[in-house]
Amino acid sequence: MCLGVTFLGGGSFGTALAVMLVKKGIQTKVWDRKKEVVDDINIKRENIKYLHGTVIPFGLEAFEDINESISGSSYIVLSVPSHAVRQICRKAKSFINDNQIIISIAKGIEEESKKRLSQVIKEELPHNPIVILSGPSHAEEVAQDIPTTVVVTSENMKYAEKVQDLFMTNKFRVYTNEDIIGVEIGGAVKNIIALAAGVSDGIGYGDNTKAALMTRGMSEIVRIGTSLGGKPETFSGLTGMGDLIVTCTSMHSRNRRAGILIGKGATVEEAVEEIGMVVEGIKACKAFYDLKEELRVSMPITDILYKVLFEKKDCKYGVYELMTRDKKHEGY
Amino acid sequence: MCLGVTFLGGGSFGTALAVMLVKKGIQTKVWDRKKEVVDDINIKRENIKYLHGTVIPFGLEAFEDINESISGSSYIVLSVPSHAVRQICRKAKSFINDNQIIISIAKGIEEESKKRLSQVIKEELPHNPIVILSGPSHAEEVAQDIPTTVVVTSENMKYAEKVQDLFMTNKFRVYTNEDIIGVEIGGAVKNIIALAAGVSDGIGYGDNTKAALMTRGMSEIVRIGTSLGGKPETFSGLTGMGDLIVTCTSMHSRNRRAGILIGKGATVEEAVEEIGMVVEGIKACKAFYDLKEELRVSMPITDILYKVLFEKKDCKYGVYELMTRDKKHEGY
Repeated sequence: MCLGVTFLGGGSFGTALAVMLVKKGIQTKVWDRKKEVVDDINIKRENIKYLHGTVIPFGLEAFEDINESISGSSYIVLSVPSHAVRQICRKAKSFINDNQIIISIAKGIEEESKKRLSQVIKEELPHNPIVILSGPSHAEEVAQDIPTTVVVTSENMKYAEKVQDLFMTNKFRVYTNEDIIGVEIGGAVKNIIALAAGVSDGIGYGDNTKAALMTRGMSEIVRIGTSLGGKPETFSGLTGMGDLIVTCTSMHSRNRRAGILIGKGATVEEAVEEIGMVVEGIKACKAFYDLKEELRVSMPITDILYKVLFEKKDCKYGVYELMTRDKKHEGY
Repeated sequence: MCLGVTFLGGGSFGTALAVMLVKKGIQTKVWDRKKEVVDDINIKRENIKYLHGTVIPFGLEAFEDINESISGSSYIVLSVPSHAVRQICRKAKSFINDNQIIISIAKGIEEESKKRLSQVIKEELPHNPIVILSGPSHAEEVAQDIPTTVVVTSENMKYAEKVQDLFMTNKFRVYTNEDIIGVEIGGAVKNIIALAAGVSDGIGYGDNTKAALMTRGMSEIVRIGTSLGGKPETFSGLTGMGDLIVTCTSMHSRNRRAGILIGKGATVEEAVEEIGMVVEGIKACKAFYDLKEELRVSMPITDILYKVLFEKKDCKYGVYELMTRDKKHEGY
């Protein structure tokens, strides 16, 4: 029986999902560390900073006190950026009981440890069931009830199925997939490719160029993903190819927008400042750059983006190099 | 030694490639059946109808006389829509000698016979080498020198390599791939998915919806393509996934634009009229609908699009059905 859901973090996707659940009649609470966000939700009935334009229904209550928000809920959704997942687990730990199902909706890996988020959560909350939700799902569209599909995965699929039932609506379709590694890695790496695709757009290159970049980006996802233990078919699915497409082509994507700014000449810092939210692809690029070196996997887009982001390589030259580096036979 | 190239058909992609070759210093001629197109190229130095805004360099000459245009060229490019390929071969046949290399740049299959275009050409010109050029390459961007990648394939790769050298520039990268079936089928089926993606956009659905549709569309391409003898890896490459992406997301795509109009309520006839050029996806949908029935391959997007296009099914309901038809496990 579902006694309610708590979102730890009132970001855009968390808020959109919370609104959806409230509309489904599920008791839903949001905790956020920013008083401004809590007040906006409770008083203005709009998350002005992160989900501008969406009316928050009266069923949704926001909290500044994390204990109060968690207490009594069957599901705890970690709706924070990937780098904050360990931190939020530690903060919430003493208030969480072992029966509460933990759901993670961030996309990334831990930069230092190179661990997947489900691994990070397991280290912090070793007795809780953990479910990962991922897929092509811009918050702005979920909030508008636009048909969206996502995937849930878990080491114990019984819990993934519970989360599937929890979120499923006729506009928000939830599929199960038992390849937790593939789902998590696909979601993390696609942000790197989206940043690179944005850079290409920012330089002024066209749809032909970006399609080529995305095609090769997909190969990069498959190579690193399978070498980490993911199944190839997962990367052809919603959390791989689907999410890559939506992130590389939609103006809702922060990663793509950050890339566009960099392609137009902004520094990384300026781009992040302008976006005003976490740009997961930047952190992912650093993490996967190290990881691919360790595992000796070829990731030329990640390579060049790393040099653009962290070694001040000229991005125009970077994309050019990418376009011309391959041999003349189409190999994968 | 290249004694020049003749394009049979002054459409947008043919003209863009011809302009590119002239700039490379290659003697290039264009034949078109429309006097207006020939005159525009020769006198106004612009193909106003099909490639508005691109200056035609003085090296490029257009002809109304097909014999005159073909005579002396090493390469004959069939730059007509797929349904006109057999026709143009028959028309040009008596002027073509066996040493001239035939290049086809259309994307589709013959509606009646369900033959690939290289098969059609071989029936009409059995002694000529045949090369297929395909990939994510909107004419408007090729004409602007935007970085673009394509693939060439042939039953005899020696000729594909010649064509690779012919077209290669530092902005137009040409790769070889020996999987002629995969290259031709990918290029044909992606137009069906692009039409469907356009319908989704036209209805007002979002990027999340389209990404899901494209992900499933990709599975459809792989299923029918491999059942016809193509290699799975080809469909992950430029002529499969790459071309699918560019066709589903770019406003340069006629197929997508036709779909948008249909999604907004236009009839098929109105949409075709409005686009003013051939919409390959409509013919492809009919052809592959029959083919999938024969081969018993599941192609749900093609199925529903067929009903929308030819049986007046409501497209909004069609997309909805697609989004909800799958079982709850993510299977491919």
